[in-house]
Amino acid sequence: MATSRFRSPEPALDALYDDLSATHLQPLWELRGLLTPTPRVRAVPYRWRADDLAKLGRRAGDLVSIDRGGDRRVLAMSNPGLDGAPFISSTLWAAVQYLQPHEGAPAHRHTPAALRFVLDGEGVYTLVNGDPIGMARGDLVLTPSWTFHEHHNPGDVPMMWLDVLDLPMVAALDAVFFEPAAGPEAGQAHVPRSTAERRWGAGAGLTPAGMSDLPPHSPLLVYRWQNTDAALDALLEAEDTPEATIRFQDPSRGRDVMPTMRCEMRRVLAGATTSRERQTGTRVCAVLDGSGTVLLDDESFDLSPGDVFVVPSWCTHQLHARTRLDVFTTSDTPVLEALGLLRCEQVDE
Amino acid sequence: MATSRFRSPEPALDALYDDLSATHLQPLWELRGLLTPTPRVRAVPYRWRADDLAKLGRRAGDLVSIDRGGDRRVLAMSNPGLDGAPFISSTLWAAVQYLQPHEGAPAHRHTPAALRFVLDGEGVYTLVNGDPIGMARGDLVLTPSWTFHEHHNPGDVPMMWLDVLDLPMVAALDAVFFEPAAGPEAGQAHVPRSTAERRWGAGAGLTPAGMSDLPPHSPLLVYRWQNTDAALDALLEAEDTPEATIRFQDPSRGRDVMPTMRCEMRRVLAGATTSRERQTGTRVCAVLDGSGTVLLDDESFDLSPGDVFVVPSWCTHQLHARTRLDVFTTSDTPVLEALGLLRCEQVDE
Amino acid sequence: MATSRFRSPEPALDALYDDLSATHLQPLWELRGLLTPTPRVRAVPYRWRADDLAKLGRRAGDLVSIDRGGDRRVLAMSNPGLDGAPFISSTLWAAVQYLQPHEGAPAHRHTPAALRFVLDGEGVYTLVNGDPIGMARGDLVLTPSWTFHEHHNPGDVPMMWLDVLDLPMVAALDAVFFEPAAGPEAGQAHVPRSTAERRWGAGAGLTPAGMSDLPPHSPLLVYRWQNTDAALDALLEAEDTPEATIRFQDPSRGRDVMPTMRCEMRRVLAGATTSRERQTGTRVCAVLDGSGTVLLDDESFDLSPGDVFVVPSWCTHQLHARTRLDVFTTSDTPVLEALGLLRCEQVDE
Amino acid sequence: MATSRFRSPEPALDALYDDLSATHLQPLWELRGLLTPTPRVRAVPYRWRADDLAKLGRRAGDLVSIDRGGDRRVLAMSNPGLDGAPFISSTLWAAVQYLQPHEGAPAHRHTPAALRFVLDGEGVYTLVNGDPIGMARGDLVLTPSWTFHEHHNPGDVPMMWLDVLDLPMVAALDAVFFEPAAGPEAGQAHVPRSTAERRWGAGAGLTPAGMSDLPPHSPLLVYRWQNTDAALDALLEAEDTPEATIRFQDPSRGRDVMPTMRCEMRRVLAGATTSRERQTGTRVCAVLDGSGTVLLDDESFDLSPGDVFVVPSWCTHQLHARTRLDVFTTSDTPVLEALGLLRCEQVDE
Repeated sequence: MATSRFRSPEPALDALYDDLSATHLQPLWELRGLLTPTPRVRAVPYRWRADDLAKLGRRAGDLVSIDRGGDRRVLAMSNPGLDGAPFISSTLWAAVQYLQPHEGAPAHRHTPAALRFVLDGEGVYTLVNGDPIGMARGDLVLTPSWTFHEHHNPGDVPMMWLDVLDLPMVAALDAVFFEPAAGPEAGQAHVPRSTAERRWGAGAGLTPAGMSDLPPHSPLLVYRWQNTDAALDALLEAEDTPEATIRFQDPSRGRDVMPTMRCEMRRVLAGATTSRERQTGTRVCAVLDGSGTVLLDDESFDLSPGDVFVVPSWCTHQLHARTRLDVFTTSDTPVLEALGLLRCEQVDE
Repeated sequence: MATSRFRSPEPALDALYDDLSATHLQPLWELRGLLTPTPRVRAVPYRWRADDLAKLGRRAGDLVSIDRGGDRRVLAMSNPGLDGAPFISSTLWAAVQYLQPHEGAPAHRHTPAALRFVLDGEGVYTLVNGDPIGMARGDLVLTPSWTFHEHHNPGDVPMMWLDVLDLPMVAALDAVFFEPAAGPEAGQAHVPRSTAERRWGAGAGLTPAGMSDLPPHSPLLVYRWQNTDAALDALLEAEDTPEATIRFQDPSRGRDVMPTMRCEMRRVLAGATTSRERQTGTRVCAVLDGSGTVLLDDESFDLSPGDVFVVPSWCTHQLHARTRLDVFTTSDTPVLEALGLLRCEQVDE
Repeated sequence: MATSRFRSPEPALDALYDDLSATHLQPLWELRGLLTPTPRVRAVPYRWRADDLAKLGRRAGDLVSIDRGGDRRVLAMSNPGLDGAPFISSTLWAAVQYLQPHEGAPAHRHTPAALRFVLDGEGVYTLVNGDPIGMARGDLVLTPSWTFHEHHNPGDVPMMWLDVLDLPMVAALDAVFFEPAAGPEAGQAHVPRSTAERRWGAGAGLTPAGMSDLPPHSPLLVYRWQNTDAALDALLEAEDTPEATIRFQDPSRGRDVMPTMRCEMRRVLAGATTSRERQTGTRVCAVLDGSGTVLLDDESFDLSPGDVFVVPSWCTHQLHARTRLDVFTTSDTPVLEALGLLRCEQVDE
Repeated sequence: MATSRFRSPEPALDALYDDLSATHLQPLWELRGLLTPTPRVRAVPYRWRADDLAKLGRRAGDLVSIDRGGDRRVLAMSNPGLDGAPFISSTLWAAVQYLQPHEGAPAHRHTPAALRFVLDGEGVYTLVNGDPIGMARGDLVLTPSWTFHEHHNPGDVPMMWLDVLDLPMVAALDAVFFEPAAGPEAGQAHVPRSTAERRWGAGAGLTPAGMSDLPPHSPLLVYRWQNTDAALDALLEAEDTPEATIRFQDPSRGRDVMPTMRCEMRRVLAGATTSRERQTGTRVCAVLDGSGTVLLDDESFDLSPGDVFVVPSWCTHQLHARTRLDVFTTSDTPVLEALGLLRCEQVDE
């Protein structure tokens, strides 16, 4: 274990550098790129096509058993700028997970928080601390930090969905813990409505009285597409604008669903173009429905249903909807906000 | 203007009392009842019958025009313990308001906050800062502190509802302000869904992104019975208990709907009896549906749909449901909580 | 127990009024003065002179034993507008308390919160939950809601100080509880520095690490004049203005010292006049040092050291300092703030 | 830019891996070490000796001009486990900064937050947004995120101090911004007491009334050793324990001094040994006074005044004081707390 040894043509300085290295010190004046005018972001804008994800997921499903590694059959999106790291940005992990008929991914828990967003299909149910949550297209499912979770596909068709985790961030904070569950897997043939929904999902502003010991995340663990869809329509009508965004929140306290991730669904009407803007932190976006383009800095990407793209920190971002576009976004914005590091700006064109 | 003059058979003390009075001072040792072991509550438990309220409301509607006084046709519940003051307790005002067909109660605003709970009927709409809110049985409508509000009955049948205000409390704090609206009355034949509901009412945990300048109260101004009813059923199923209580909350922050009043709806299944308990602060309760009894300290009151009763501070309270009982409650609990004065306890039988 | 019976020359209406009265209802249209354009404040501006307080306190000390009533020898300031109620306003109690040499006022606790401000003298110590706090001129001592407290004068000279409580407000909320202490009185000859000061009083921003179970009030129970005096000088120098105000805060959370009362000390340099302003809620003020005048609405009062005056809700307020003026103020402002009822405005002259 | 290409002896799987790589995807089941039972921490426990830092600082001062690079003459502590990165852990930067007589380090600002702790010497003053702060032994000086700061040494002796920044964390969040100041350097011969201290530093719980627009960090920018020292003595006396810890807090809100860093000073009396404990997140510690040892996991390090050591995440930590030991600690604990990732535990021996 040794630190960098710098060199100088001046003998006295070179001798100092030698001693610094031996003492595990580095001279600031020889370091470059530590404090840059704007963020030096290694992750680049990128889009993964729905078709590719679907085909490769299927092939993995055919070739690899669920217990081959990690107890999950997952393809991680690897940002081309990150030198081969399996992360979509320096803070977030994004992946597709594929489950064959009658397969189950066993229960475990970890400090990195996860969410699942269903771009297509249905039939799998996820248990979060034992509470069974059926998953269908457009649903957002939370498996917050340190909650046990497992996935089961009791049906006859495979299913795939998008996973997003704050894993790189939790790893950078040296705070990853992991634990497999002791007990056996769930095996329910019939999946009832989750207890979380029955307690917390009844309607806006309607909460169970006298609940104490609330968890640090949203007690509502799933947000159903039917409700989100209606909320977007209502908001568009109320605002009379060509686009609207719904934020998913903890109904007990009105905060983000989890301390590290913000989730939103944006609807842009056909023909509309959003303003160009940028902010610090990573956004991972997935097209639920519609087609259009996204301009990320100077690069334009076509968008189709099921496509996933990443907006790295401080990258300008603008959507154009060819048909009505529904885009799910998750980001690390709550972290930047909590630490006083969030910057947003409109970019003039 | 003079303060109390105390008397003493001791001449020196009597002379002191004379001088104290002249100086607007009072001797603590002659005062009684200031610091009592438990609250000395003047308000008494009482129940107003739905029938009485309905009949007297109708008679007032026939005899008194809306503009005769206060721009509202309102019958205030006067607690028998308060020596003729028009308040249901030392902190809350409760009343029924009656509107004839084609009548309107003009817009004004005041610092006391109000809420409307509909025990029967439908057809009136209330505008809150211009946002029209149709009212029907079981709905809770907020007209928070300093919001302009007006009521209109465009239909052919009269309508009556329950008003609750924090007026005595705001008056005791010397903070009552009032202002009539400048403009003309609204006259909408068709009442659309309120903007508040379209923005904030879509579903649990679904909120408009990027809303700033939130008001100090819930931005959702109405809670519909259809949703409350479903929420109660779902909660009863989740908890598997014979009773459940839904709290109405500000969906943007998860707080009480207004800083001074908590609102809840409780459902007790037929045959069930709730635990006996008491707490500081006043509760005003109204029976939406079902029949049973309420035990307030040692007095039992029969309950029928439309009945209103008051639970004074520190009075024990226990419900028994003959048929399934739905009881709306509003209280000053957020005030006692904010000031560190809330005490709750179960009372052993 | 009966409510008001209204009268009408119209027989049908009079009959309705009869039935309303029997049903404990009142017609709003016959009520006056409930919703006024600005607060209808019964308390009036008033000032109690230091000399009067001192003389009458001494006389009470000579004539009345400490155990004669209420276990305290206290003269309550009775606002001339409140029809003989022993309160300085509708929300606050203010009084002087007088303790003879070698006397002790035994321990008790109550939900109304109290503070002590020493206008002159020294030597008494107050125990708060057993923690002994020596009292001297300019010190602010807290005995928060439901803390046991007792006062002892081990010395050879009598001492008097100002008490302010939120008693009328807590009584209006029907939340007064009282309990005498079980144990015997304290009898310390030597009063050490309080534990509260040793833990929390060391300096700005220096707090004990890892303290849990913080009380709902400031854990620092005394604010010493030496520090307040230096803070005022430093603030005047930093701002380069003719007046400055220090707010006493809970050092653990930066909130007001107690949930119901704000405490401040204002210094106005000789010759300066403050801006004219008014706000909702009551302010009780005491002159620690200096002379000048206070203009309360249209009435001017001379001020000398030891004088106490009350600024009722929405009463305009302006100080003029003949010599450098130090004025202690306590108010119910945190309550109005928490309930969304605080209004402040500058008044043009 | 390409992602990792995995290999398999099974041709179908190998073909899948080829296509995954081309599509910037990675198979989870080939990845190792992502989710570990406990944190996989690369940083190792380490201690830098005061003597080494002093000697190498002086040599850098003699050989390198201040404007040679980065406008600061700084030696960064490079954790031996981090493969040559100039960071003391994955989240924190720690360094010594050396300023020659009559030198100045020009003003700039950056989003990474910094603090300075003075282990020895005095005479330099730091301007924070123009407010001059003299620095002396034991003082803690804050230069929070995005505040302009500059350092000046008007005296005749060099001075060195400890810098700690959250730079690696802010870089990992892709949120580094930097800006040099436009204006010329300060050149004050006489350094008055800082405005921050005059406003906020007067005493525990004494704050300027009516301050609005508080910054996201402590408005008090310096904590003087004289006060900290007295606070430690008072706390030890109050608790009657062999060790005590003072936390530096924002006096306006009682929070940590900055959103990303907690600062504490611990005093351990001669002969005492602290409990063995570990927590997530990095602690950087500096010995202000005294001698003893620190046990970090299984490795013991001697401690002398001026020594700096790092406690990596989840590393057990135990101090033994040979003479009375004063240890300053800064950590990223507020971040772990805000994100729900803080774990602390006592370790049995």
